[in-house]
Amino acid sequence: VTELRVLPLAGLPEVREGDDLGALIAATAELEDDDVVVVAQKIVSKAEGRVVRLADVEPSRKAVELAADQDPRKLEVVLRQARRIVRERPPLVIAETRHGFVCASAGVDASNAPELGMLVLLPEDPDASAALIRDRLAALTGRVVGVLVTDSFGRAWRQGTTDVAIGAAGMEVLVDVRGVRDRVGYELHATTIAVADEIAGAAELVMGKVEGVPGAIVRGLRLSGEGRARDLVMPRARDLFR
Amino acid sequence: VTELRVLPLAGLPEVREGDDLGALIAATAELEDDDVVVVAQKIVSKAEGRVVRLADVEPSRKAVELAADQDPRKLEVVLRQARRIVRERPPLVIAETRHGFVCASAGVDASNAPELGMLVLLPEDPDASAALIRDRLAALTGRVVGVLVTDSFGRAWRQGTTDVAIGAAGMEVLVDVRGVRDRVGYELHATTIAVADEIAGAAELVMGKVEGVPGAIVRGLRLSGEGRARDLVMPRARDLFR
Repeated sequence: VTELRVLPLAGLPEVREGDDLGALIAATAELEDDDVVVVAQKIVSKAEGRVVRLADVEPSRKAVELAADQDPRKLEVVLRQARRIVRERPPLVIAETRHGFVCASAGVDASNAPELGMLVLLPEDPDASAALIRDRLAALTGRVVGVLVTDSFGRAWRQGTTDVAIGAAGMEVLVDVRGVRDRVGYELHATTIAVADEIAGAAELVMGKVEGVPGAIVRGLRLSGEGRARDLVMPRARDLFR
Repeated sequence: VTELRVLPLAGLPEVREGDDLGALIAATAELEDDDVVVVAQKIVSKAEGRVVRLADVEPSRKAVELAADQDPRKLEVVLRQARRIVRERPPLVIAETRHGFVCASAGVDASNAPELGMLVLLPEDPDASAALIRDRLAALTGRVVGVLVTDSFGRAWRQGTTDVAIGAAGMEVLVDVRGVRDRVGYELHATTIAVADEIAGAAELVMGKVEGVPGAIVRGLRLSGEGRARDLVMPRARDLFR
């Protein structure tokens, strides 16, 4: 790599349910082959109508218990999105989603919702969401790009969130340098690099949370391949932190 | 941010104990004010002589127990660098270092060591290492930059490593957007962004593990401040994963 450029995806309109995100991006961005187009989960979920109205939610007893000073209906939505609760310190819940991602509130978020009283859920199948955007971009622009759908996740042991990939299409997400030897002759073990997550984080640096830049273009890599973000989930048998 | 550029720090000579890293970087890179200069931990440790010769190490009983099919002397070095063992599945050890970082082998690494039979340790005080490089760069180039010292860490629940900041100087490492309200009026809670880790990951994308590019310049951010990488360690009281 000689140089990497990270360009904000600016000028997109407010996204509504049913919007064709690929078409919106194609209309505003000048894409090149091998670009990685990074799209914030929030606008993908909105386009897909992955939104819940709090008024429609009846909280369970467990949700009331977890809610502390917060709205128990939000906790109810979190519980329904969770396959497993990993840690709870009410009202904070770290949960494993049905996709296998471990994150706060099972990815359920009130900020950036379309209206007050609404919660945004993660896409049902974020890899499929990424693939759809990629296909639309190919059809509309003729460019062969990688696409990542990203969200901000906390980490164990470290402060602050970093953006990670929850959906991917048309690119490698893990680059394996095992078996490669360094100059002295040592094998570089344990070095599978989660490039998709590093790209997601790089994109976040130009996106920000409030400026209304819901994506970025990362230019200068060549990662064509068939990786999916679900490959980033640690398989149960190898997971030391279940 | 209008655009972020990530430039590989190429052309550095092989680093030896006692080398002045700031001077080596100043001689090869064209810096600008507000650049973030990212330096791989491995060359910082080498310059600081943070190297152990396996031949000088006598393994303890615990080290033999943890080693499985690996060299018990390496496990002994890991145990000495660890404040606490977080998980063990011999020969894999996840440990908390004296700095508070949780990572594989307490940051002890054989790859990219100066010679076979040597292990490289993390710097004693990576924030101080970053500050020293920053001061040398300021003195030699007149440029006011941020500096990160980075290493590749695994993550709980996710596959692959991402580079994170273990040392920092002259820049914010966490950007707090709590209290900021989105368009609909929701407060963006829980959104302290670990920008230093995102920058570290972005830099890794141009560094690679074997091409001999031990750093990068990240250009286009304005993060001047006094953050330190130790601020990225989750305080014990808030850590749900101890």
